[in-house]
Amino acid sequence: MAETQIFLLPGPTQVPPRILRAGSAPMVNHRGPEFKAILTEMTANVKKVYQTQNDVLTLTCSGSGGLEASVANFVNPGDKVIVASIGNFGERFRDLAILYGAEVDYIGIPWGKPLDPQIIADKLKADINQEIKAIFFQHNETSTGILNPVKEIAEARGSHPALLVVDSISGMGAAELKTDEWGLDVVIAGSQKAFMSPPGVAFISVNERAWEVQAKNKNVKYYFDLAKAKKSLADGQTPYTPAVATIYSITEALRMMMETGLEAIIAEHYFRRDTVRAAAAALGLECVAKEKYASPAVTAIYLPEGMTQQQIVKPLREKFNTVVAGGQGQLKGKIFRIGHLGYLNILDLVAAVSALEICLLDAGYKLELGTGVAAMQKMIYKQYC
Amino acid sequence: MAETQIFLLPGPTQVPPRILRAGSAPMVNHRGPEFKAILTEMTANVKKVYQTQNDVLTLTCSGSGGLEASVANFVNPGDKVIVASIGNFGERFRDLAILYGAEVDYIGIPWGKPLDPQIIADKLKADINQEIKAIFFQHNETSTGILNPVKEIAEARGSHPALLVVDSISGMGAAELKTDEWGLDVVIAGSQKAFMSPPGVAFISVNERAWEVQAKNKNVKYYFDLAKAKKSLADGQTPYTPAVATIYSITEALRMMMETGLEAIIAEHYFRRDTVRAAAAALGLECVAKEKYASPAVTAIYLPEGMTQQQIVKPLREKFNTVVAGGQGQLKGKIFRIGHLGYLNILDLVAAVSALEICLLDAGYKLELGTGVAAMQKMIYKQYC
Repeated sequence: MAETQIFLLPGPTQVPPRILRAGSAPMVNHRGPEFKAILTEMTANVKKVYQTQNDVLTLTCSGSGGLEASVANFVNPGDKVIVASIGNFGERFRDLAILYGAEVDYIGIPWGKPLDPQIIADKLKADINQEIKAIFFQHNETSTGILNPVKEIAEARGSHPALLVVDSISGMGAAELKTDEWGLDVVIAGSQKAFMSPPGVAFISVNERAWEVQAKNKNVKYYFDLAKAKKSLADGQTPYTPAVATIYSITEALRMMMETGLEAIIAEHYFRRDTVRAAAAALGLECVAKEKYASPAVTAIYLPEGMTQQQIVKPLREKFNTVVAGGQGQLKGKIFRIGHLGYLNILDLVAAVSALEICLLDAGYKLELGTGVAAMQKMIYKQYC
Repeated sequence: MAETQIFLLPGPTQVPPRILRAGSAPMVNHRGPEFKAILTEMTANVKKVYQTQNDVLTLTCSGSGGLEASVANFVNPGDKVIVASIGNFGERFRDLAILYGAEVDYIGIPWGKPLDPQIIADKLKADINQEIKAIFFQHNETSTGILNPVKEIAEARGSHPALLVVDSISGMGAAELKTDEWGLDVVIAGSQKAFMSPPGVAFISVNERAWEVQAKNKNVKYYFDLAKAKKSLADGQTPYTPAVATIYSITEALRMMMETGLEAIIAEHYFRRDTVRAAAAALGLECVAKEKYASPAVTAIYLPEGMTQQQIVKPLREKFNTVVAGGQGQLKGKIFRIGHLGYLNILDLVAAVSALEICLLDAGYKLELGTGVAAMQKMIYKQYC
């Protein structure tokens, strides 16, 4: 009887019943009026979450397809670009930029730390001929649970013409991102994170400045040609057959999000983060992120000395139907990650921590059962009562 | 975002996704071969849970309809019957027997205690002319969380011809009931308890001795005429249009139950009971049932002195999407009840207790947050690790 999981990945996230039902509606003609109404409504609401008036295009692909589109449309072979990586997903930008022939200035921040905006400021100041065409970085780095100071990074760009290309796949809707106010040129998001929907759809926003760059782009691109997507959207369509059911789901998800309000949603994400961090602290476990840059979407916690990832992640799943993530890349085998974005009950986190304590104890870690749970309960009591 | 509840009523219970999907299949002709196959499979598996070779008939009605059928088919006006009540649902048998014109010997056991088999033995011994036609009682009394000693009550019947009519609506599948071995003549069950399905279908088993009584029954009955149901079942049908979707669900539920095995299912119910009782004890709360007769389906817990039901049940639902039941009848306002039958994760109970602690504290009860949870965790650690 294992199908109902306490599902705490940093995406895909839980899909609430209301959204599952919406996603199970019959197909409609994706060139007809019903779909036009849906795509138009969804796009308008996605823009509210993006806090943007820019175009936001819907791509039928996972977040990685959105990342490819952000390189393919805005980087020409030979272009100088900065890729500032703070973890596993930053490296994906590097790989893509190299693949598309860019001359990449790769800034590899030690995993577990955010990008220091001063590094960007210095790089751009030194670029006296303004040859740097774009700066790629993450809003929220899923692999480490670090939230980058996007606003400050954007300020560091100043008047330099380089495009700011932000991967907000796991950040959008969980942490604030003021696309327009902060002057972010291209921002990528995905359906399976704070949008509480199944994977398969990515979003990408493009502002005027980025469109000018896109118009001169020379890469061969077909499926990810954003100019085509913009043209189709004017007719309430997508250039290629869209993931209709996933778009039903996201449309319903956005209705739910508008009912709750973006501010309340983000505050709830921070509260979840704080309870998980309090539990970790009470159990003597160290979080990867310091509080200032700790992600409201996912908390990465170091495994106790000598313990393997499989001593935690596997029994949580096998004994308790509780799904958390292990580490990736450099942190593989060193951490586990509790996702707390999207749709969940704060008690899901309490339940997961109660089971985590049992697994830790069973793996030989010294603790008093209930310690982490009690720390969370105290915060919940304060918040809810 | 309140649709995903931690749903701990003593029925209806959680319906797992696999069963929800089964229940959402298209309609079939309820007089055709597909439905015949489903009804035949379901009936065969229900009989395994009943542990019976007797006829088990499927009625489209809630459990109360099954109770009515058990009176309407086996009690004639003027018949002497014993109704032994240990709570709210026992009184339903009394009301029905009176309504159908029986001369009722009502044994009202103080709520919170089981039926003492000696009372039955004494009554039957005193019935020298063997005028008592039937004995009605509950297997599991949902309102108090008491499990009756059915086997011992059946033994107390001895060779007296009175029929044993057992309401096992909330007991069947959660606690053992050996219909044939214990010689139970008529047993009623329902879809929405340990069968993990939506409400709307009741089962009733009838043995040879009961059929003989039924054949001579004089009551006007139409929808609940069990002879008709038996005749239809021989053709893989029901006399009136059945709740097709609910029957899909139950059929799938029984597949799941057969995969897990009845013994393991019942052991799991007892373990859940024991963890909830351990939490109550750790929090200084008193359970209605003493351990020996404590139900594996539902635990009724006395409210602390001076506290109202609404100080617990309401905030659990409103703040934490956690649904438990209040008291009924005599115990209304004095207890709350945590259902733990059917489909759930042991962590659902941990989560509920963590929230219960918060609500108790908020209502002025003195406790250390995490105390009840830790008591449960210790038991889960022992059981799972």
